[in-house]
Amino acid sequence: MSDSVSSDNPDLPGTGVPLPPMSLARWGTEAEAKELNESIRGLLRNVLGVTADSGVQFDPAAVTASPSRLDDDDIAALVTLVGSQNVSVEDAQRLPRARGKSTPDLLAWRLRPEVDCPDAVVAPASDDEVAALLDWCGRESVAVVPFGGGTSVVGGLNPEAGRHRAVVSVDLARFDSLESIDAVSGEAVFGAGVTGPRAEELLAEHGYSLGHFPQSFPYASLGGYAMTRSSGQSSAGYGRFDEMVRGLTVVTPVGVIEASRAPASAAGPDLRQWLLGSEGTFGVCTRVRVRIHPVPEVVRHEAFRFPDFATGAAALRAVEQQGTGPTVIRLSDETETMVNLATATDSIGEGAAAMGEGTGDDGGSGDDGGSGNDGDSGGCLAICLFEGTAEHAESAHAATRAVLEAHGGTSLGAEPARSWEHGRFGAPVLRDSLLDNGALVETLETATDWANIERLRDAVVVALTTSLEASGTPALVMCHISHVYPTGASLYFTVVAGQRGADPLAQWAAAKRAASEAIGAHGGTITHHHAVGADHRPYLAAEIGEVGVRMLRAVKTAVDPHGVCNPGTLIP
Amino acid sequence: MSDSVSSDNPDLPGTGVPLPPMSLARWGTEAEAKELNESIRGLLRNVLGVTADSGVQFDPAAVTASPSRLDDDDIAALVTLVGSQNVSVEDAQRLPRARGKSTPDLLAWRLRPEVDCPDAVVAPASDDEVAALLDWCGRESVAVVPFGGGTSVVGGLNPEAGRHRAVVSVDLARFDSLESIDAVSGEAVFGAGVTGPRAEELLAEHGYSLGHFPQSFPYASLGGYAMTRSSGQSSAGYGRFDEMVRGLTVVTPVGVIEASRAPASAAGPDLRQWLLGSEGTFGVCTRVRVRIHPVPEVVRHEAFRFPDFATGAAALRAVEQQGTGPTVIRLSDETETMVNLATATDSIGEGAAAMGEGTGDDGGSGDDGGSGNDGDSGGCLAICLFEGTAEHAESAHAATRAVLEAHGGTSLGAEPARSWEHGRFGAPVLRDSLLDNGALVETLETATDWANIERLRDAVVVALTTSLEASGTPALVMCHISHVYPTGASLYFTVVAGQRGADPLAQWAAAKRAASEAIGAHGGTITHHHAVGADHRPYLAAEIGEVGVRMLRAVKTAVDPHGVCNPGTLIP
Repeated sequence: MSDSVSSDNPDLPGTGVPLPPMSLARWGTEAEAKELNESIRGLLRNVLGVTADSGVQFDPAAVTASPSRLDDDDIAALVTLVGSQNVSVEDAQRLPRARGKSTPDLLAWRLRPEVDCPDAVVAPASDDEVAALLDWCGRESVAVVPFGGGTSVVGGLNPEAGRHRAVVSVDLARFDSLESIDAVSGEAVFGAGVTGPRAEELLAEHGYSLGHFPQSFPYASLGGYAMTRSSGQSSAGYGRFDEMVRGLTVVTPVGVIEASRAPASAAGPDLRQWLLGSEGTFGVCTRVRVRIHPVPEVVRHEAFRFPDFATGAAALRAVEQQGTGPTVIRLSDETETMVNLATATDSIGEGAAAMGEGTGDDGGSGDDGGSGNDGDSGGCLAICLFEGTAEHAESAHAATRAVLEAHGGTSLGAEPARSWEHGRFGAPVLRDSLLDNGALVETLETATDWANIERLRDAVVVALTTSLEASGTPALVMCHISHVYPTGASLYFTVVAGQRGADPLAQWAAAKRAASEAIGAHGGTITHHHAVGADHRPYLAAEIGEVGVRMLRAVKTAVDPHGVCNPGTLIP
Repeated sequence: MSDSVSSDNPDLPGTGVPLPPMSLARWGTEAEAKELNESIRGLLRNVLGVTADSGVQFDPAAVTASPSRLDDDDIAALVTLVGSQNVSVEDAQRLPRARGKSTPDLLAWRLRPEVDCPDAVVAPASDDEVAALLDWCGRESVAVVPFGGGTSVVGGLNPEAGRHRAVVSVDLARFDSLESIDAVSGEAVFGAGVTGPRAEELLAEHGYSLGHFPQSFPYASLGGYAMTRSSGQSSAGYGRFDEMVRGLTVVTPVGVIEASRAPASAAGPDLRQWLLGSEGTFGVCTRVRVRIHPVPEVVRHEAFRFPDFATGAAALRAVEQQGTGPTVIRLSDETETMVNLATATDSIGEGAAAMGEGTGDDGGSGDDGGSGNDGDSGGCLAICLFEGTAEHAESAHAATRAVLEAHGGTSLGAEPARSWEHGRFGAPVLRDSLLDNGALVETLETATDWANIERLRDAVVVALTTSLEASGTPALVMCHISHVYPTGASLYFTVVAGQRGADPLAQWAAAKRAASEAIGAHGGTITHHHAVGADHRPYLAAEIGEVGVRMLRAVKTAVDPHGVCNPGTLIP
């Protein structure tokens, strides 16, 4: 592994290319890494037979990057297009863009240290530069993989050359500005490379917020959100990212698309809805116009306990169908609730820790609910947040609580919801530590109609458990509902098992295949918000049908005639 | 014109093909036709110089249908596919499917009595029959125009053969059932030929409603709503039709698409959003799965007066951005408000009559608002309806009223809103009478961001007025906001002028062109809910761009390789 890294010297080649902050074999930065607490260690040891010395460790010294297949003339051409400082062939820049952040990716750093890397990293800063780059790539038969935050968990960043001779990673980080705000219409235009935290920071200066908080929030970019149909934890209040996007710019090999549709239109099929979720296969997203809203005046919290998942799901359904207006509403199933209770503050599976610990300290919200004393007797935990003006948050809170209590919910006060909010971006960091300690841990997700929720959940749990047990390990399969719609909801699964055998990658691949097949067979979508990438591509044809595949391929051919745009992703 | 019509005798050819209920040269049935009241006659005479004898009249005896270009072998083939009773070449069946219901269509019946008709009408009843029909048409080079309610106002039904030798109108009326209801998920599956009233009737038996009430409601079909991205008057409460559609079936020449997406998904571009609005150019929609909701327990009404359009628009914007939850919210501009006051019960331009007449008789809703006594002093009228449970309607009503009053609105009580609701499907029927009396009357619509609303409205008003004045007539150009979104709103224009010269078709074509160019130049969409058809097709490329057109054409070629599907429509 090369030790050379970019410096701040603007005269040096590649110094304009930002170094991705996340560690190679981790979700987060080195600074975020933390030890497992004793309760989690106990769970791993006692339930899953996992001990710290049973997992394969990452050895940075073993890592080698594939040599760049681009020659000096190629690099000179790229330098002509975007400037010397914005082209890098250093290993230190190519390696972090070689893999995403799925568990298979993180295991691959441990088990497959010979890394297929993109052959160069290029950081353009204008639509014209992107267009020129795509043009060059088309003529030279070089594939293009867009890179935003690098948080794909579905193989969306795989540097797959397809039939081409090399791969260039196109970093969007220099599309980094808030270009405009329209306070009247409630819209803002951002460069595609702006990250979640940066977008919130830029908007906050004007009193606005985007309200998009997926688990990838600390690192992912707005362009990435758009291209993968991300959905954040506040989707009940502010919608999915694809609902927030009012317009977007995509530079394709045949020209720029400005899909800047009116607030609504009957002018034919919705072009914007074919760019959203296109995962870089039609071109490079450089700009998004998104809906914004005033920074909420208040946030109110309340957690509820339901006796079982079916009762809780019916309650969430009633809330959404009646439109009582929570900003966040989530429900953990019995297993996730139990595991979170057992593992205390560093909860596995994204749920709130300390259910049953919340009593009166709820800051005035939720304090007329239950005492929380029955919270530790099991059941299912639901988390609610309410945002907006004080008046709106209060009325949404009261209306939601009334529906949840009418449907069998018991208030646990505000604390479990605050605890969830506090730790809500922490699960992927915990995954790093679990992997280091010999656990096999991953998440997957789907969505379906309300009438099919329990059937689908059961099928996926059985598929995962059966597959992992066949590999010689017990498995904890946790599930929660994290996004609700009038007609259905998402299901988010967190799996913890023991790494078994010489190749835990193969072990997980079998479990993932079983889950994906169960999802397809039981009416779920192959992905609710993680996107397709390379990992779900084998299942897309079954979901959209032969004619759907034909439509996708037709558009692909029309806008990317040389097939250089992210050929390893999405399109079957 | 042939006098032969279908009978109920099942042995006769064509008897299974339903006869469209609307009169040839009218929007509605003969029974709906009504005389103009004296106040409207006065307005026409005094303001526009229009008298009853200045308009060209429809003469049914002058109508001749183009002879069918299909020969006996063709008819025999069609009969083999769908049965003798479901194929008709009678003039009485072909004529009503020759034109839609735009003002140019209605004038054409008067001015162009030699009618290009589809060469046959076929009424299949299954996906397999539609597929077989498309297959035959592809092999035999015969174009296919789907027919639902026949209410297109954009030339979407034009029997354009393109490069083909004939045109078949495919009537969807036999896809006439409510196939299933999922009460848990809040969804229902309907055949595409079910009309709005029939859908409500079928759902009401189970306690549900769709809540889609466009002006075409009495006649249009659910398949038509989906294929044209219809939006109903209750869109603030229940969404546009494209938001209600959870899944749909489209039979294309290369196979059936079941775009039955989960409530939300990240599985790539949204196929459903490319079928919605495709206007029969990719195939024939045979089935829709739509969101339903319980029949509202109560409906509350309140109207408001604003001093001017800008103030009223800002108030509607505040309501929508704050999400106070009206089911219907509309705002007429000063001209529309004034005209509606002047024309009393049969209001032109869809606005409520009798503004200022509403006082205390509001059935308990809105009675703590203003007295209504200042309502007749001009300004702009806003109409609000609130539906749902008694509690929801009351709280939405109170919250909306508070915002409207805080933004300069004065309550006029319930009556003007009730009056609007009572007459809300009447404007197209009134248009029939106005055309008969020598007026040139038509509507057109667009949408834009809130920040651009006034600029766009002004530009369209100027364009229409200027064009019509150049043709020698004053023009009344009225406008209202009828659909609101967080980031913008629709603008709906009603134009009344005098028919001038020998060819009022050319007179209107010039005005329409001026309006369409103004919309394009000032940031509006070429259509918010009327669709593209033949009439807006010249403007689509400017709206979606060269790459957008390339994408549309690519999909068209992929699913309709022979180009038989509605070749006169949509795709530039």
